[in-house]
Amino acid sequence: MFILNANDKAPLYRQLYNQIREQVLSGKLPAHAKLPSVRDLATELETSRNTVEGAYQELFAEGYIYSRQRSGYFVSAIDQPVAPVSRLTAARKPHRPSASEPIFRFDFHPARLDPAGFPLAQWRSCLLETLRESPAELSHYGGFQGDGELRCNIQRYLERSRGVMCDPERIFVCAGLQQSLDLVAHLLREGHSTLAVENPGYHLSRAVFQNNGFEVVPVEVGPGGMDLEALRASRSGIAYVTPSHQMPLGQVMPIANRLNLIEWAQSGGNVIIEDDYDSELRYHGKPIPSLQGLRPDADIIYLGTFSKVFSPALRLSYMVLPNSLLAGFHALYRDYFPTVSLLEQKAMARFMAEGHWDRHIRRMRIVYQKKHDTMLKAIEQHFGARATVIGAGAGLHMVLELRESSRGESAIISEAAACGTYLFPFSATCAGGAPDTTRLMLGFGGMTAADIGEGIRLLAEVCLNVEEKCPREQGQK
Amino acid sequence: MFILNANDKAPLYRQLYNQIREQVLSGKLPAHAKLPSVRDLATELETSRNTVEGAYQELFAEGYIYSRQRSGYFVSAIDQPVAPVSRLTAARKPHRPSASEPIFRFDFHPARLDPAGFPLAQWRSCLLETLRESPAELSHYGGFQGDGELRCNIQRYLERSRGVMCDPERIFVCAGLQQSLDLVAHLLREGHSTLAVENPGYHLSRAVFQNNGFEVVPVEVGPGGMDLEALRASRSGIAYVTPSHQMPLGQVMPIANRLNLIEWAQSGGNVIIEDDYDSELRYHGKPIPSLQGLRPDADIIYLGTFSKVFSPALRLSYMVLPNSLLAGFHALYRDYFPTVSLLEQKAMARFMAEGHWDRHIRRMRIVYQKKHDTMLKAIEQHFGARATVIGAGAGLHMVLELRESSRGESAIISEAAACGTYLFPFSATCAGGAPDTTRLMLGFGGMTAADIGEGIRLLAEVCLNVEEKCPREQGQK
Repeated sequence: MFILNANDKAPLYRQLYNQIREQVLSGKLPAHAKLPSVRDLATELETSRNTVEGAYQELFAEGYIYSRQRSGYFVSAIDQPVAPVSRLTAARKPHRPSASEPIFRFDFHPARLDPAGFPLAQWRSCLLETLRESPAELSHYGGFQGDGELRCNIQRYLERSRGVMCDPERIFVCAGLQQSLDLVAHLLREGHSTLAVENPGYHLSRAVFQNNGFEVVPVEVGPGGMDLEALRASRSGIAYVTPSHQMPLGQVMPIANRLNLIEWAQSGGNVIIEDDYDSELRYHGKPIPSLQGLRPDADIIYLGTFSKVFSPALRLSYMVLPNSLLAGFHALYRDYFPTVSLLEQKAMARFMAEGHWDRHIRRMRIVYQKKHDTMLKAIEQHFGARATVIGAGAGLHMVLELRESSRGESAIISEAAACGTYLFPFSATCAGGAPDTTRLMLGFGGMTAADIGEGIRLLAEVCLNVEEKCPREQGQK
Repeated sequence: MFILNANDKAPLYRQLYNQIREQVLSGKLPAHAKLPSVRDLATELETSRNTVEGAYQELFAEGYIYSRQRSGYFVSAIDQPVAPVSRLTAARKPHRPSASEPIFRFDFHPARLDPAGFPLAQWRSCLLETLRESPAELSHYGGFQGDGELRCNIQRYLERSRGVMCDPERIFVCAGLQQSLDLVAHLLREGHSTLAVENPGYHLSRAVFQNNGFEVVPVEVGPGGMDLEALRASRSGIAYVTPSHQMPLGQVMPIANRLNLIEWAQSGGNVIIEDDYDSELRYHGKPIPSLQGLRPDADIIYLGTFSKVFSPALRLSYMVLPNSLLAGFHALYRDYFPTVSLLEQKAMARFMAEGHWDRHIRRMRIVYQKKHDTMLKAIEQHFGARATVIGAGAGLHMVLELRESSRGESAIISEAAACGTYLFPFSATCAGGAPDTTRLMLGFGGMTAADIGEGIRLLAEVCLNVEEKCPREQGQK
């Protein structure tokens, strides 16, 4: 017996569906029991045939009932007991917004960008123009390699500004450096099992290759970049390097070492992965040309990103593959769809074509140079001779090596945090043990000039063990 | 001897840099040769000291020269000859736009969407509102798991419309189904080496797992979905299934088989990957509730996407992980950045919150139902009893099984292409050999009603070996 309630919010057919379904699942309607005909049940319930037909169709579609030609509907045999979890009563944590990280007054994270630096008006107009001009494109998957016009614009930019020599056919648009690395790791796994990385070096790249089953061999980095003898000794066939701005120490690999590294690749059938992550940001002189441009025919995989100068939130990066890897790459990813929004790819192509990109880089170089210089001055003022700056002059961070402090990194980080100051641990960039001396990684991209000064002052007090450390602690005394 | 030319477009310091660099690389300036002092060279060239200082600084930064305290600059020793490829003369294919695929008059690709279906005005307003409200967010990397508000809205939608029961903490935003699968494959690789897939089944999922080193075992699909006995016999610990709308055959897995499949997972410590790719599009009755909702505590990985109803160009998908896999997932991807643009995530959160998403689904269901019905009618008219439709009633494609035709798939596809008609090969969904009978996969999402009628008429002529095939060939007679 079923009861339909016209005052119930659920449609009548749905009420009937629910009641029959429940009786099937509870066994009250046993397997192979015949259901009343549509006409009979409609009459019985004083409802329309459509209501009964709708309920039966849904029960049938989901397999609760089956039909026999000219005989009507029957209850299906269901062996497994149904979940005790009813949809309405399932135990479920109440919704709460995802736990946000503590908010820091002074955030020295090296990956922060200037909050006001995003070229909002130009980007909006590029998005709108793209939406206006090619709305039909939104009904298509784009090509895996990325939008053709964007790749052409990236090619011209790379040649002009980074000395990278390639065809747009060698450029692939990706959703961030890590995705580029993931694609590369997949590709190189066929012939390689170890990867040499700079030590200290970028920890996120290590993570990607480790997750792809590679043995990651740390090779020491000196003032000239990765130690080539140690690289040879590692017997690794791939070297991941950051020659234009070593991550995290900031040096530029000298031309002699660059040529030696390329020679290592060419004479031994080895591969170089050149990560050129923030090469646009050099504050004195022109940016350092890329390794790739020295030998465009060598096996160098060149990686670049829009995350450092433009926005890390949009997830846009690119890579240039050597000719030797193109066929294998296309074979591996023949069936893949792209991972970057076509709308944003086309908007970026337009942003570059209209000259916004070059202007934006010039503008941000000035913005960040000011912050960089403020930081250097504040360090000079508050640390004086008790610390040495490593890797200034470029990028969005510098490294501070403490001299006389006996305090270790973790003590400094936790005390700084108590004073509302975030420090990214330098030790995260070290494979194996942390260095003997305490080094602090200081990003300045996201901070105002005033906050840089105040934050460095506070940090000096924390590091140099001055009695009164932070305003909050003072207040609590 | 260096020559500076004030009429040259390049700045003076750059001209000087280029000339010294060339002499270093050619050996004209030998290793360890001392360079003139800044003052002397400036006097000699009748230029400012800044010009010389600028050139030296850049040569120094790139390692062409080195400095000794109080002694000035010296030429670095460079062992390797420099690339013969000059930047200006490098052989390079002239730029040409990427080769576009041939344009088809009738495109039956199953992944095409209605070109006018994208909700342009609403999406634009959501993008603009997001840009207006939270521009500062664009200077941050978002969280790897995805925007919190978007995950909450997806959770509510999934519970309401798909019967999926989960916390937003179990939802991960991804850049398309393949990226979801790639993350899952990485995760499951620890404990598994084989994956059971439906045969016929979605070929792109097979590719992702194969690229991740899995042995992929095809398991036959019957009217009730994946054959459970064959699944058990495969000894695979993971089953990838499309229970709400089998890809490509279109059946719904009956409730009894769903519960048996869940029992297989629960009793054997196995994992189910439920791909619910186009579940919104059922044209009769309500959408089929998900497998996941039957047992939210089972090891079911639920995958959904915005590509089928909304836009494949924006690259937005999501997955719901079982509780048992959460800790491992977070450990593996602790250091990862997200792959989806935060701007588009937030725009989608807003799109859902304002009710546009639900309205859009209802609207698209009507649009596609009309195309679907037109297709059925056209098939009935032009093929009649000589073909059977499989898997109608849902999604964006149906399968046509030819009866009396002796022609094979590849002959039909190439002859159709000659008549301007694109057919996606059904055989691509078959692991191992193609089926005995010829099956055609017919997508209707991207076609107008008129084109569907005309395209099916033409296809019938191709398939059924009628004399006069296509207008173009007629014209050539």
